[in-house]
Amino acid sequence: MPPTDSRLTELTTPCLILDERIMLRNIDRLARHAADLGVTLRPHLKTGKSVDIARRVLSGGTGPATVSTLAEAEVFHEAGISDILYAVGIAPQKLDRVVALRRAGCDLSVILDSRAQAEAVADAARAAADPIPVLIEIDSDGHRGGLRPDDPELAAIGTILRDGGAALRGVMTHAGESYGAVGADAQAAFAEQERKAVADAADTLRGAGLDCPVVSVGSTPTAHAARDLTGVTELRAGVYVFFDLVMAGIGVCTTDDIALSVLTTVIGHQPERGWIMVDAGWMAMSRDRGTANQASDQGYGVVCDENGTVLPDLIVANANQEHGTIALRACADRPLPDLPVGTRLRILPNHACATAAQHDRYNVLRVESGALEEWPRFGGW
Amino acid sequence: MPPTDSRLTELTTPCLILDERIMLRNIDRLARHAADLGVTLRPHLKTGKSVDIARRVLSGGTGPATVSTLAEAEVFHEAGISDILYAVGIAPQKLDRVVALRRAGCDLSVILDSRAQAEAVADAARAAADPIPVLIEIDSDGHRGGLRPDDPELAAIGTILRDGGAALRGVMTHAGESYGAVGADAQAAFAEQERKAVADAADTLRGAGLDCPVVSVGSTPTAHAARDLTGVTELRAGVYVFFDLVMAGIGVCTTDDIALSVLTTVIGHQPERGWIMVDAGWMAMSRDRGTANQASDQGYGVVCDENGTVLPDLIVANANQEHGTIALRACADRPLPDLPVGTRLRILPNHACATAAQHDRYNVLRVESGALEEWPRFGGW
Repeated sequence: MPPTDSRLTELTTPCLILDERIMLRNIDRLARHAADLGVTLRPHLKTGKSVDIARRVLSGGTGPATVSTLAEAEVFHEAGISDILYAVGIAPQKLDRVVALRRAGCDLSVILDSRAQAEAVADAARAAADPIPVLIEIDSDGHRGGLRPDDPELAAIGTILRDGGAALRGVMTHAGESYGAVGADAQAAFAEQERKAVADAADTLRGAGLDCPVVSVGSTPTAHAARDLTGVTELRAGVYVFFDLVMAGIGVCTTDDIALSVLTTVIGHQPERGWIMVDAGWMAMSRDRGTANQASDQGYGVVCDENGTVLPDLIVANANQEHGTIALRACADRPLPDLPVGTRLRILPNHACATAAQHDRYNVLRVESGALEEWPRFGGW
Repeated sequence: MPPTDSRLTELTTPCLILDERIMLRNIDRLARHAADLGVTLRPHLKTGKSVDIARRVLSGGTGPATVSTLAEAEVFHEAGISDILYAVGIAPQKLDRVVALRRAGCDLSVILDSRAQAEAVADAARAAADPIPVLIEIDSDGHRGGLRPDDPELAAIGTILRDGGAALRGVMTHAGESYGAVGADAQAAFAEQERKAVADAADTLRGAGLDCPVVSVGSTPTAHAARDLTGVTELRAGVYVFFDLVMAGIGVCTTDDIALSVLTTVIGHQPERGWIMVDAGWMAMSRDRGTANQASDQGYGVVCDENGTVLPDLIVANANQEHGTIALRACADRPLPDLPVGTRLRILPNHACATAAQHDRYNVLRVESGALEEWPRFGGW
């Protein structure tokens, strides 16, 4: 094993390590692809939940951005980001906060898929004398919410919004099922499914005499795989900033592209069972087992040395609250490496959003200075 | 459905609700059982990670208590708790913080199961001129760490500690496998397995001329099921303060005993699929699927009305980051209830430790005043 990275020695384990060089490469990759496709990129900031990361994802600009909670909208607006889509179906009780953010100068839009929500938004828009912008959610793959592109409710909802004092800004979809599509061709098929669903929905609205300026698609797999986005105006993606084992498992990236890891320390051994115990359990890694049904089940994560180099066939096979159990894969044809008590390792996460959410800060390996810097991370709703 | 609980209307969803009345009943139940068994109860504070909860669990006292991170030890010592066991195998790099806490007046003890750890602790004890107290971890069920009760390493490690300047305080075990034991008899068998393992280990140490004043056992299932703890001096348990669906699934409690829930709001419907969408996804519930292999798989949680009454056969069947999908159990012979957009519900968690860890505060339904109060919760390491 090469000499330990001296930047990490003062850190208390377990903790998050973020490699800024890899992150910037990931950010650049999708920015170029969106430019090639001729669409606006509206990055999802829910993965990082960090102002420092948001500034790099948005290249210092004020948006456009996507968020998954109003707490994110509030923090990022405070930090100067002013064009934000809140991409979780709006609950009527949350409209006060939406109106307050818009009064403070944030161009915040919301999503919905029912008359009840549309009526609540229209009521709030009239009461505030503010045409709250709305995207109608379209179901492109049966993954969770949204209306089918040919649903007559689409025009009915659009009319409620327009006539009620809100603003129908467009349509959006998210092919969550694309996370199960292996390889670029399968993901490109999902990208086309997203594109067609929202393009058809936009046609439905326009056919009913309604405006539909924004046509928004995206998930990390489809955003990278999309080959043609005719009729689409913007692309959303989130986890691509860090990438993770789920994305590597379906071929969107390789393990070398994963910018996030958890630093951990060996605390014990059970040699007869082939186990190495570390101080990163599910409290540090999350309970996410997103690779469980992939061709390579990575347990609770792939094990690297302290410098981030993958140790072949070694995974976190099990996790208790503050204990991780490292073991060789069942198929491995090699001995367990000698990793004495006190050895520091890095674990690549199954799902970067979930692992990052277990921590309140990133320990960042900075690109320019090479120094280690702490970036805060927030949570909550 | 009865009228909504007016205390909850100002809360932003998703958020944690803690019913103090149920919690105090749970705390009292195990305190009585420990007293009946004639052992000291050393509650595990990792579930709550809250000073307000710790004060109730310890009945206002200064300990004894168990923690799972040094951050917990530091926060709880600052709050006046002075007798603390750090129950995760000690990493050599963490001994500076252990020594600092002990210098500040905390009777902090650590656990280990190897010569390498014992030598590191002895070195730190000598350097600090402080006999750091140590419990040797015993493996009673093959769950993770620890030495078998008859392992010759036990006496070797005890000798390294004693002769090196540390203090051998005793032995401890945790039958994590008891979480899979259904019913009081099966759990009592695990309790006896824990008891025998540490009693035998204490005999091994004493036979080698070493002291072993503390003999510590515990897990929530075995703590409640134990019938005789001859040879044991103390009992540990953690999740019993809140209980959860995993504990209900193996019969340690009922759903009426679960003190913790997540308040959520209905944000949409997919009537053709029988889905109700809410704003509590895995970010609010955690990814814990601890009931997946139980007789009743509860998905991501059991659905209650806003007042905490279980809605029959309704579970959170799936969870995305900020979306929960509520559906009827496959076997349910009833229609989906009518829960319009904006309806507030409460979700009982699979695993209280994991769900609580997703939040930074408890919204507490207070016993005496009946008011709602915010108690902070901390995380980190």
